[in-house]
Amino acid sequence: MENFNYYTPTEVVFGRGTEKQVGELVKAQKCSKVLVHYGSGSVKKSGLLDRVFRSLDEAGISYLSLGGVVPNPRLSLVYEGISLCKSEDVDFILAVGGGSVIDSAKAIGYGVSNEGDVWDFYEKKRQASGCLSIGVVLTISAAGSEMSDSSVITNEKGWLKRGYSSNYARAKFAVMNPELTMTLPKYQTASGCVDIMMHTMERYFNQCDNMELTDGISEHLIRTVMKNAKILMEEPYNYDARAEVMWAGSLSHNGLTGCGTDGGDWACHQLEHELGGMFDVAHGAGLAAVWGSWARYVMDACPERFARFAVNVMGVADGADETETALKGIEAMEAFYRAVEMPVCIKDLGIEPTVEQLRELAEKCSHLRKRTVGCVKKLDVDDMYQIYKNALEFG
Amino acid sequence: MENFNYYTPTEVVFGRGTEKQVGELVKAQKCSKVLVHYGSGSVKKSGLLDRVFRSLDEAGISYLSLGGVVPNPRLSLVYEGISLCKSEDVDFILAVGGGSVIDSAKAIGYGVSNEGDVWDFYEKKRQASGCLSIGVVLTISAAGSEMSDSSVITNEKGWLKRGYSSNYARAKFAVMNPELTMTLPKYQTASGCVDIMMHTMERYFNQCDNMELTDGISEHLIRTVMKNAKILMEEPYNYDARAEVMWAGSLSHNGLTGCGTDGGDWACHQLEHELGGMFDVAHGAGLAAVWGSWARYVMDACPERFARFAVNVMGVADGADETETALKGIEAMEAFYRAVEMPVCIKDLGIEPTVEQLRELAEKCSHLRKRTVGCVKKLDVDDMYQIYKNALEFG
Repeated sequence: MENFNYYTPTEVVFGRGTEKQVGELVKAQKCSKVLVHYGSGSVKKSGLLDRVFRSLDEAGISYLSLGGVVPNPRLSLVYEGISLCKSEDVDFILAVGGGSVIDSAKAIGYGVSNEGDVWDFYEKKRQASGCLSIGVVLTISAAGSEMSDSSVITNEKGWLKRGYSSNYARAKFAVMNPELTMTLPKYQTASGCVDIMMHTMERYFNQCDNMELTDGISEHLIRTVMKNAKILMEEPYNYDARAEVMWAGSLSHNGLTGCGTDGGDWACHQLEHELGGMFDVAHGAGLAAVWGSWARYVMDACPERFARFAVNVMGVADGADETETALKGIEAMEAFYRAVEMPVCIKDLGIEPTVEQLRELAEKCSHLRKRTVGCVKKLDVDDMYQIYKNALEFG
Repeated sequence: MENFNYYTPTEVVFGRGTEKQVGELVKAQKCSKVLVHYGSGSVKKSGLLDRVFRSLDEAGISYLSLGGVVPNPRLSLVYEGISLCKSEDVDFILAVGGGSVIDSAKAIGYGVSNEGDVWDFYEKKRQASGCLSIGVVLTISAAGSEMSDSSVITNEKGWLKRGYSSNYARAKFAVMNPELTMTLPKYQTASGCVDIMMHTMERYFNQCDNMELTDGISEHLIRTVMKNAKILMEEPYNYDARAEVMWAGSLSHNGLTGCGTDGGDWACHQLEHELGGMFDVAHGAGLAAVWGSWARYVMDACPERFARFAVNVMGVADGADETETALKGIEAMEAFYRAVEMPVCIKDLGIEPTVEQLRELAEKCSHLRKRTVGCVKKLDVDDMYQIYKNALEFG
């Protein structure tokens, strides 16, 4: 078992109607001017943005707003947000949306609180020394960014998708009303569920002596998301199922499922980041498209872990042959992806990268051959290329 | 499923040798003078206190110390601590010990940051509006006070044991090195494990529609503690078992196991507080002594919950008769208590209260007939008396 740090200072306000509390929550932060940051028109159309504005008005909070965040949020809008915050003396950012909006808010927060180009942090050229305070009204269960330390931004120059993590960016509060996620399209709901599961699975698959308490929590979390993802395919307005998935989303990425581990593998996330940067696919769907290929490529490095996963998570009978059990678990996960209409290969994403493009993805993912990714099995540029290639078509 | 708030701002630094970081952790709090608060001589004898002092010295932190906290920590020492902090301008309290030391530190913190008698808060006469910042070096896995909002103090005048909870008292950081718990006597280790389990069980047994994610986490947490408690009876120096129990202790009482519930029952804790106040028994042992009697008395109010507990936690076969399954679960828990040398009735605690004393306990627990306790079944003074009476001897 490894030493670990666990730090989740975000105050969670969870349940029906909780968005009405946002004004008071912002007020408690003792800030003077708020930037309300959001994405497309959906929060306008649903009336949520108006309810948020009303709550801020009632609490006597001064604010301005900046919309337009897109999935795989763009650096150009981050720059725009930084300028706006600086010129208007904004000292708090309220993200109303999902992971993309929250990540964009975090990037703006870094940009305001630190000199120089904010992209430097995402390029790992230097470390941030602070971040403007962030609050969240969550509308999509997926990224876990409402409680996590991470933020992922896409730079349109070269379509590079890069992440940066620090405790400075942990949200002060997160308002989480599962009702707000009920109108999400099926595809986005399922894609979010895969993202949540993968945040736990990336930590679960590792090469260290694990903590039993963490393992069992992770296994139960993944099972719970799978069960409720299936329910939501039939009953998108099922409150309890939405709530289970929403809370799982936060717990999957706030650090809880990594306690006592070495930090996890994260190769699938790295591989998907390049796909998402180049082809703008939904993050969870991109993860599902490469996971099977990754799992088959690395499972021999720790068959006992994959076998445990098969039995405890996927309900595979505990067979005599570890490798066979492990493989059945991977197949069962792919069957689940299909059941919730998620891809099991890259072509299922509706894209068909050329061999040259796959090579380019691998080169980018290895940061031009400067690094390996993963820990279950360390992957160099050739491994990455092979995993992309195997993921192109199923079987 | 109920709405809930979840707030766990404590920074956890977990693992081998982590007490060496305490100086830097205190320094990051930007305080000018620290009160190091501790209990008996064990932290002196073990050398831990010296290591803590050395770490503070190295970080250039000015401090003074106050020892002498006893189990069921006393109000008189709290008053002494408050005077000391005020006269010496202390602005941070470092608790080096278990739940009693941490609870005493929280009470001192309330007393310094609020005018008037600190006991008022524990008597629920008024609310605190702040608390001095607290840090923890944990030496006993049990109370969960290192991450919880609660504090329990015993007033020698009348031997009243009362609790007070507020987010102000959440520790800024908790240093948790499982090695520090290795020398605990068997009885204290087992008593701590029961306390941890009960913090989860008090939340698990309730009358609301539960959250599946929370239920599964709770069930796994209890199973993990039971498994490792048994290991520790044979191998007190088993690091992994100590670590599993220590982390379970924090998760059991930081709020995680109550998410989506109505807050839980807590009748056993209330009943034990009176026992502990009058007879000064170990808290976990006191809980084990009354739990079986409580469970049998209330199980008919929600047999399906007790049956689920029997199957999912105690490994009882899922039988056709819910009540029978529920009862088997209670018996299995009592068998576990015996296996780790914990009591299953009050006489097992080595005390033999008279009928008059049992009546007095019930009167005190009902705050002189002013309140009921519990939610699985609301208990009035006569119910409490009956539970104490049934708990006197086993069977």
